[in-house]
Amino acid sequence: MSELCRLRGVLSPVLTPFKEDLSPDPVRYIEHCRWLLDSGVSLAVFGTNSEANSLSLSERQWLLDVLLEAGVPPSSLLPGTGCCSFPETVELSRKATAAGCAGVLVLPPFYYKNVSDEGLFNSYSEIVQRVGDARLRIYLYHIPPIAQVPISLGLIERLLKAYPVVIAGIKDSSGDWDNTDALLRNFQSEAFDVFCGSEVFLLRTLRGGGAGCITATGNVNPAAIVELYRTWREAGADGKQAALTKTRGCFETLPMIASMKSCIAWKRKVAEWATVRPPLVRVSAEKAEGLQKLLDADGFAMPGV
Amino acid sequence: MSELCRLRGVLSPVLTPFKEDLSPDPVRYIEHCRWLLDSGVSLAVFGTNSEANSLSLSERQWLLDVLLEAGVPPSSLLPGTGCCSFPETVELSRKATAAGCAGVLVLPPFYYKNVSDEGLFNSYSEIVQRVGDARLRIYLYHIPPIAQVPISLGLIERLLKAYPVVIAGIKDSSGDWDNTDALLRNFQSEAFDVFCGSEVFLLRTLRGGGAGCITATGNVNPAAIVELYRTWREAGADGKQAALTKTRGCFETLPMIASMKSCIAWKRKVAEWATVRPPLVRVSAEKAEGLQKLLDADGFAMPGV
Repeated sequence: MSELCRLRGVLSPVLTPFKEDLSPDPVRYIEHCRWLLDSGVSLAVFGTNSEANSLSLSERQWLLDVLLEAGVPPSSLLPGTGCCSFPETVELSRKATAAGCAGVLVLPPFYYKNVSDEGLFNSYSEIVQRVGDARLRIYLYHIPPIAQVPISLGLIERLLKAYPVVIAGIKDSSGDWDNTDALLRNFQSEAFDVFCGSEVFLLRTLRGGGAGCITATGNVNPAAIVELYRTWREAGADGKQAALTKTRGCFETLPMIASMKSCIAWKRKVAEWATVRPPLVRVSAEKAEGLQKLLDADGFAMPGV
Repeated sequence: MSELCRLRGVLSPVLTPFKEDLSPDPVRYIEHCRWLLDSGVSLAVFGTNSEANSLSLSERQWLLDVLLEAGVPPSSLLPGTGCCSFPETVELSRKATAAGCAGVLVLPPFYYKNVSDEGLFNSYSEIVQRVGDARLRIYLYHIPPIAQVPISLGLIERLLKAYPVVIAGIKDSSGDWDNTDALLRNFQSEAFDVFCGSEVFLLRTLRGGGAGCITATGNVNPAAIVELYRTWREAGADGKQAALTKTRGCFETLPMIASMKSCIAWKRKVAEWATVRPPLVRVSAEKAEGLQKLLDADGFAMPGV
């Protein structure tokens, strides 16, 4: 893998559209991915906001094939492949790597709690060794509010020492700027790319030497987020950041996944888009209407939809 | 399914023996299951202490076949089938039910946090409806310290109303006696069996009308736990309970799964038994020795091993 195609910029955990019967809708999925790519956003498919953890392994494999067969460039893909069990993480990571994906975003095994850094190191080691492909690029996925299993600075240091190049970066979804800042400061000299997990931190991350963001709201507000990424060194960047943060706040008034799906259902005039898999629940008609009013007041638009 | 073969008594989340290469060892697995059955313990295979969440779906399917083909009676089996995604939970639950297992122990989907009771109800509903087998018996698995997704009294009430008979009971691994007590008091009139998640609460659970316990240490101390279950109405029950609690305390001086596996490795003189899958780590030789001294001082034995 050439370092030229190393991931940078804005990625989004791609929302997974479901039909009323809760099966994934491949046609709407391809349509949404193409719109994201046209908007300048790369595809962190199978992330938390993709409801990936509500998809079976075989559904994730199938959806990856759907995108590749539709001509989505593998270099634009960063599939989430972290499962509770390492054999499943290995199987999905191997497939993504063989297909030429830019990398894989790997949750720590998240069922058992209060596990040691040694155990987590062993877990990532098994993945690296069993995938056994020099093209493998692992982006660590730190999301303690959900996974409840954090990735410490010490663990990263140990992994980088054992597997330089393979351990390529991190998505920091802690929501804690101090942690992102520590990542940027500690691993600046390494070939280790730090992505913040929300565009709220995009400007600070870029100013600190980070690679970009992997953000849920890239699904609905991609153009404006990409615009800040492209122009962050220019005058007006702080104003753009403030506008992004304000728009994100509208979506955060409701549970994020259901909120964004409800917005796409509204903008695309496709009610089915609002479908989520349990344990999530779709937003009520009343709340969807409230969100629409908020977004209209914000001047929100989805160009190209 | 006849209510005559309804589960009661002592069950254990069966430890999964691994080879040095971390693959499950079917021969040792069968041997361990037979020993548990001979000791009067039924088999809650694929529980938390089985490292089931470190096994792939296909490994769980294979291990279930291994046991059935070895002649383990399906009526003694309560496989854990709860995965993050409902298609996987459905697939495993359907297989177990078709094989005649006594029931399935079903975790809530545990990746997404702070989900609503409505979302969890929908999740269990999908499982009941998609398994679509009148023989299905679901035991809810409440283990908030690990899953971080609790099963509330309100959710149980709603599930029992919608799916009486199918929703057959609960394993309460909250470690909170007040919760077990509330379960016993609230659902006494229903065909809903309450199992405590540790033998520490066995006597109190039985006195409160519960069905028994599903306990990790059933893997190492089955005979004594079964003895209390069989004689709990007789004089001396409190003394037996105190002894069980004391023995469990020895195992709890170390992380439980590694601790129990280390004990079996010692008693069976098979070092490989101590193997765990990451993110867990095996106990050190030094700590294993400390545990052995504690257990020897306690008069601990594993008859028949």
